Amino acid sequence: MRLLEDRAAREAVATDRSGHRPDTLPDAVVRARNVDDVVETLRWASAHRTPVVTRGAGSGLAAGSSAHAGQVVLDVSGMDRIVEIRPDDQVAVVEPGVLTADLDAAAGEHGLFYAPDPASAAISSIGGNIATNAGGLRCAKYGVTRDAVLGLDLVLADGRRVATGRQTVKGVAGYDLTSLVVGSEGTLAVVVGATLRLRPKPLETATLAAHFDDVVAAAAAAAAITSARLQPSVLELVDAVTLEAVDAARGSSLRSLGAAALVVQCDGRGALAEIEAVGQVVAPFATTWRATTDPVEAEELLAARRAGLPALEATGDVFIEDVAVPRSKLAEAVAGIQAISARTGVRIATIAHAGDGNLHPIVVVERGATVTEGPPWEAACAVFDLALRLGGTLTGEHGVGLLKRTWLRAELGEDSLDLQHRIKAVFDPLGILNPGKGI
Amino acid sequence: MRLLEDRAAREAVATDRSGHRPDTLPDAVVRARNVDDVVETLRWASAHRTPVVTRGAGSGLAAGSSAHAGQVVLDVSGMDRIVEIRPDDQVAVVEPGVLTADLDAAAGEHGLFYAPDPASAAISSIGGNIATNAGGLRCAKYGVTRDAVLGLDLVLADGRRVATGRQTVKGVAGYDLTSLVVGSEGTLAVVVGATLRLRPKPLETATLAAHFDDVVAAAAAAAAITSARLQPSVLELVDAVTLEAVDAARGSSLRSLGAAALVVQCDGRGALAEIEAVGQVVAPFATTWRATTDPVEAEELLAARRAGLPALEATGDVFIEDVAVPRSKLAEAVAGIQAISARTGVRIATIAHAGDGNLHPIVVVERGATVTEGPPWEAACAVFDLALRLGGTLTGEHGVGLLKRTWLRAELGEDSLDLQHRIKAVFDPLGILNPGKGI
Ligand SMILES: Cc1cc2nc3c(=O)[nH]c(=O)nc-3n(C[C@H](O)[C@H](O)[C@H](O)COP(=O)(O)OP(=O)(O)OC[C@H]3O[C@@H](n4cnc5c(N)ncnc54)[C@H](O)[C@@H]3O)c2cc1C
Ligand SMILES: Cc1cc2nc3c(=O)[nH]c(=O)nc-3n(C[C@H](O)[C@H](O)[C@H](O)COP(=O)(O)OP(=O)(O)OC[C@H]3O[C@@H](n4cnc5c(N)ncnc54)[C@H](O)[C@@H]3O)c2cc1C
Repeated sequence: MRLLEDRAAREAVATDRSGHRPDTLPDAVVRARNVDDVVETLRWASAHRTPVVTRGAGSGLAAGSSAHAGQVVLDVSGMDRIVEIRPDDQVAVVEPGVLTADLDAAAGEHGLFYAPDPASAAISSIGGNIATNAGGLRCAKYGVTRDAVLGLDLVLADGRRVATGRQTVKGVAGYDLTSLVVGSEGTLAVVVGATLRLRPKPLETATLAAHFDDVVAAAAAAAAITSARLQPSVLELVDAVTLEAVDAARGSSLRSLGAAALVVQCDGRGALAEIEAVGQVVAPFATTWRATTDPVEAEELLAARRAGLPALEATGDVFIEDVAVPRSKLAEAVAGIQAISARTGVRIATIAHAGDGNLHPIVVVERGATVTEGPPWEAACAVFDLALRLGGTLTGEHGVGLLKRTWLRAELGEDSLDLQHRIKAVFDPLGILNPGKGI
Repeated sequence: MRLLEDRAAREAVATDRSGHRPDTLPDAVVRARNVDDVVETLRWASAHRTPVVTRGAGSGLAAGSSAHAGQVVLDVSGMDRIVEIRPDDQVAVVEPGVLTADLDAAAGEHGLFYAPDPASAAISSIGGNIATNAGGLRCAKYGVTRDAVLGLDLVLADGRRVATGRQTVKGVAGYDLTSLVVGSEGTLAVVVGATLRLRPKPLETATLAAHFDDVVAAAAAAAAITSARLQPSVLELVDAVTLEAVDAARGSSLRSLGAAALVVQCDGRGALAEIEAVGQVVAPFATTWRATTDPVEAEELLAARRAGLPALEATGDVFIEDVAVPRSKLAEAVAGIQAISARTGVRIATIAHAGDGNLHPIVVVERGATVTEGPPWEAACAVFDLALRLGGTLTGEHGVGLLKRTWLRAELGEDSLDLQHRIKAVFDPLGILNPGKGI
């Protein structure tokens, strides 16, 4: 364990990738190397009633791991061992700091994969994924992080260790504490280990890109894919603002093909037949579409999606929203977001996990401008409001963190929030775990 | 709402299908017709501190809905409307009393299906499935009830209504109260409504049956299917005792083909190719195997599995266990169960959801004999012990109910149980919801 108090170390862990900048710095950083370090830190923090902000890789987008004066950051990114991969059980046991992409690669050596794949897989930790219940591109078919977590190894606020869940695929003994901690954003316990489900790598993969005159047509095509009982593993929507940014960054001319694109992947046996069926469904909506089973060409088709966020970030500072709506409301949502952008004059690009109805409206401001105040934040709030009116949620996968807390009551209601605060008190009676976040 | 106090009505709801017989009868039965009935009952029960046992269809196997003197049974089986099916969102909204098979059939009219399919689908309710986190045959590919529940409508012990979850496929706002209530066996809240995920019906289905010289070879073949990265939707194992009972009941001669069988189904595009790959994998282990895409022939192949339990029930009274082990431990588990049967002289048949490592050892006793005492219960306990030693769980899908409570501490440990009791107190401070069950 290393306890660091110098300014540089504290600055390095003061916030995440949300754009939020706390006014003050945390008092200190503990770099935990093992479970005992975590236990010791929490015992000390309980004794001194000092708030602890657990930090994974710091790639969060909701300021969940941001910290300020009076708080200590518990950095678990150094606990990064893949303890065990059991191919016969299709199970991995890991420490929390393992990077998502590293686990996936290690599973790959056994013909398996780790399904949850946030776009941040290369820079996010499994512990952070668990704490935010991270989603990703493949959720449309394979579910979110919760669906991949069989059991957890926890340290409670008072330093006690508790194991939840099990080593088996199924089990219903006792309440589902595992699911309760998944998505709890460091407010209930510190995740110090996880037993995760791996899946067999699909034998075949086929990829399609389609372009559309406008984003509403693209959303309608996405809905038609779902209605046609097709089940892509990836079904992503990219709007004109994003395509323009990608063209500017890569010298491509995707925008000339249409004002919106869908990128679709099918996998498993019959992936090619399925992608062709997707092609037939989108054709009436599209200006053009192309499908391939060639991996190199597939990467090219995926570029519109993958390069989207970095390309937008190259044009300014961004705040990435994360609303979700019932899938049938996708077109209405993207049209509503365009209207908000037009009305407020704030630049908003939209990338969506269309297969899940999960949209990432991306508010883009001039470099150095604040996104969490003034017109950009008002536009963001108008999007929250839109999502709730469409029967949706504030956050599909990034979490509530600090930034969406004021909106939470509107979504959950009084009685539900009350239950949640009382559950928080069961786990953390002194309120030292990431106070002010999540709920 | 109807309040019934006559003996016949109370006898009808005194227990479930577990074989457990309480010494006394509950004081009364409330037949709820709508949410207001539930609210009123719980307000009354809170005011009078009277324990309430919520009852769905009474098909449980853990005595979860059994009730005794001093308790009132709240029967919600009459709240059985399918409120809405939204094909575009692949979502259904239902009341708790809807029978599982009825929802599946209604979804079928839209080209969709409801994935969780306990073998009791025709006689179990969605509310009971949610309260036990029911599994079934298709879990191997599609997950359990928890994976199908997007949101719940609850009545708390004090009569307050709380909605959990959402209408969208993804969402992480607040703690996952939905998953907490799923599997809580009527101890946290009464489920009065649910928003459920439906899935597109698979385009193709192919079925295989294989027979083996002994059950250990069958278990090894099941493990080999998983290791070969194949993903059947159904992967069931049936042992010799069960095959003999099926033969006796149906006049078939399955036992002559071997001392154990696997029944496998693959679905989706390429189902036939996948089932043939399954055939190649099992061939070296099997005495014989056969695959088909013909629905009538498929039913014949499935008969060994489907007819198993009724056939055993025709030979005596049964106690159906429900342990689960890591998938790689399946062969060890079935061998261990055979050894327990040989050692104790108690007849134990085994049917297993082999794809999940979830075994149903079925203790068979003479008609009228008690299964929950003496040597049969000792044999059952030896099986619990075996499962825990193999890194498994007491209950894969049926729940803890009344019968497995004494074993729970051994699986969960002190600190976890303590957290769970304190969570129970958050939801139900007076302890009136199904006391003595679940945790
Ligand atoms: C370019 C980019 C793309 C992204 N794409 C996606 C995407 O597709 N899908 C998606 O879901 N997210 C996405 N994200 C958001 C982010 O990567 C995820 O939220 C991720 O799960 C955070 O992991 P982390 O390790 O970086 O956590 P951190 O940012 O360090 O922390 C996040 C939260 O988890 C808590 N926490 C971290 N570790 C632990 C632990 N061990 N125990 C208890 N609590 C802990 C923290 O307190 C905090 O509340 C993206 C982010 C970026 C920058
Ligand atoms: C032949 C047979 C085969 C079976 N096969 C399977 C199988 O394959 N997989 C499987 O998982 N199970 C199986 N079961 C067990 C049983 O069917 C399941 O546990 C089922 O989920 C129980 O549903 P129910 O409506 O009958 O609930 P009940 O037996 O009425 O109740 C079960 C529990 O749920 C609670 N409960 C019921 N409704 C509500 C509600 N609305 N709100 C709150 N709590 C409630 C009760 O208090 C009780 O604790 C089988 C049973 C039989 C008899």
